[in-house]
Amino acid sequence: MTAYLDNSATTFLCANAKKEMINSIENCWGNPSSLHQAGIDADMLLRKARTTLSKALKCEADEVVFTSGGTEGNNLAIFGTAYANRRKGNRVITTKIEHPSVLNAFKRLEEEGFEVIYIGTDSSGHLDMVSLEAAVDEKTILVSVMAVNNEIGTVQPVEMLSGIVKRKNSPAIIHVDAVQAFGKLPLNPKKLGIDLMTVSSHKIHGPKGVGALFIKKGTKIRPVAVGGGQERDIRPGTEPMPAIAGFMGAVSELTVEKSLSKMTALRDSFASKLRNIEGVSINSPDDALPYIVNLSLKGLRSETVLNLLSDMEIYISSGSACAKGHKSHVLTAMGLSDDVIDSSLRVSLSRFTTEEELDCFIEGIRMAFKVIMKK
Amino acid sequence: MTAYLDNSATTFLCANAKKEMINSIENCWGNPSSLHQAGIDADMLLRKARTTLSKALKCEADEVVFTSGGTEGNNLAIFGTAYANRRKGNRVITTKIEHPSVLNAFKRLEEEGFEVIYIGTDSSGHLDMVSLEAAVDEKTILVSVMAVNNEIGTVQPVEMLSGIVKRKNSPAIIHVDAVQAFGKLPLNPKKLGIDLMTVSSHKIHGPKGVGALFIKKGTKIRPVAVGGGQERDIRPGTEPMPAIAGFMGAVSELTVEKSLSKMTALRDSFASKLRNIEGVSINSPDDALPYIVNLSLKGLRSETVLNLLSDMEIYISSGSACAKGHKSHVLTAMGLSDDVIDSSLRVSLSRFTTEEELDCFIEGIRMAFKVIMKK
Repeated sequence: MTAYLDNSATTFLCANAKKEMINSIENCWGNPSSLHQAGIDADMLLRKARTTLSKALKCEADEVVFTSGGTEGNNLAIFGTAYANRRKGNRVITTKIEHPSVLNAFKRLEEEGFEVIYIGTDSSGHLDMVSLEAAVDEKTILVSVMAVNNEIGTVQPVEMLSGIVKRKNSPAIIHVDAVQAFGKLPLNPKKLGIDLMTVSSHKIHGPKGVGALFIKKGTKIRPVAVGGGQERDIRPGTEPMPAIAGFMGAVSELTVEKSLSKMTALRDSFASKLRNIEGVSINSPDDALPYIVNLSLKGLRSETVLNLLSDMEIYISSGSACAKGHKSHVLTAMGLSDDVIDSSLRVSLSRFTTEEELDCFIEGIRMAFKVIMKK
Repeated sequence: MTAYLDNSATTFLCANAKKEMINSIENCWGNPSSLHQAGIDADMLLRKARTTLSKALKCEADEVVFTSGGTEGNNLAIFGTAYANRRKGNRVITTKIEHPSVLNAFKRLEEEGFEVIYIGTDSSGHLDMVSLEAAVDEKTILVSVMAVNNEIGTVQPVEMLSGIVKRKNSPAIIHVDAVQAFGKLPLNPKKLGIDLMTVSSHKIHGPKGVGALFIKKGTKIRPVAVGGGQERDIRPGTEPMPAIAGFMGAVSELTVEKSLSKMTALRDSFASKLRNIEGVSINSPDDALPYIVNLSLKGLRSETVLNLLSDMEIYISSGSACAKGHKSHVLTAMGLSDDVIDSSLRVSLSRFTTEEELDCFIEGIRMAFKVIMKK
């Protein structure tokens, strides 16, 4: 593979994630709920993984609930909060640029009679915080905002949320979808003053099929699933142990701050190379997370470019892997023109991405302009 | 490990499950929703896994929905059906001896205003089919019955369900929790005339964190989770690929009929050895699934025996791993005495279980009678 630049869709497994998964498969396959030694060994591995996550999230171990991934985490946070706190109020707030697992959860709440307010953004994808502050009131029970947008990379000022909720004397629980931010930006839910935060394993070089939800102690939440009591009854079902072990491996290999400065330099150099190519416009703001660069190629349709690049073993996407084929709701909310949207591409990096891979992409789009324009 | 006899709690990974998981981790880690080659490769693996499952379940590939495991499958079947068909009626039926992921789902439906009827059993754990037939009516929208009980091994006559539903002119959807039956009994949901069937990977030597729900074409079901459209929007979230690959590996290694006759002979010999020991009574009926033998040791408390056996590296359980510490609701429903329940043990086999392991257990309980009785 020449250049895998779709790391916001998924990532390869890092060495430590593989090692821990294989150890779990080979040596520690017991059921953590079993009372004999094989169960106790598995339970110890589960505890170790929970401690690793809690250190990364700067919280207590019993504030970490393992889930099957980001979608389940977001669903549990939103439905769990809305149903558990319905008596306090009927208003819930989110944004127009969330992931489908958030947006569709709010759509369902809307169908069920909740008043849902969708906050918009400016042309760089930054939330309209004035509208957000105006929307929060004493009957608002939930505010859900993503930390980093998955298509454009815009970083939202989630640290302002708890201040707004306090000022407006609102009982609102604050949920942050941090799937794209976790492992890339320093995150401290306690300092941010938020109650719930979703993270996922397979965006940080861990396996698919596992994630975690930070739930601040005392947060009222109604489980979505019911069963045999695992995860303190908040998320029952036998724990996905090989995946949890792999997630632990991936988390313990993270070097958030160090990678962030390295990636910022890499992105800056990449962006200046892009700007030298006629017909390229960068849609991501300058202060976006350096791991995501959204751009448009004048006059070239995304799909055509994607296919050409895929043939050259350069793998990117036109937006979210979860919205294949649909027009981006994020770029639409940002008010970009149809031309820009129809020709948009998302290049997404990981800490393993090299300058050579990015140069490959640069060559690829030069080629795209030549080949496709000729036709 | 001398004797692992807790295979109804979980199983080790068979060679083929490991091989497929590792292949997925190493060579096929793309996101099946991505449109480039890395995504297409992962999607092909997902399709192959779905075909393997559909062959094992004798159904179409698009009748298989991958889940995170048995608990999610049961929840999706029960909540999905109840909420989607509420207009047709308010009555739902299950049994007193179901797994907590079924029982607690019905408890929630009860709290929400559904009329729930719990069917009891005789002293061998066989359902009271007369009561079941009497309960099914024109307002019944769901009947959920397990194929094989996880604590006692009793096989239920699920093939009678569709006849009852038809005779009573009921719109009821039929769900079967086949987590303990799958891979051990020949199962053909179409022939059985059922609409939904839950299976799980980690009970058949596949990894934890994955299962599947058979959903007969045309069955009305409301998804529990919402998100990015995966699994035809019935179970969204990036697919747990390494686990799905391992599940595929485990399923393709199954030899259901052959193992069933082997295990029946093994269980019969084990049971006659048990009957030769004074103080042992077998709670499982003679026609139980040969993979599960529930027994009681006169005068010995389960926990004491479990601990002694665990020290000898003989691993069994006192019932479901999902109900640790609680008095068995299954044995209670069967009307067994408190003495029998408090001293009950579950020995659960897999097709890899050997006579030597079972002899180890026999020696273990002889020892238990000696050591504990002396005290």
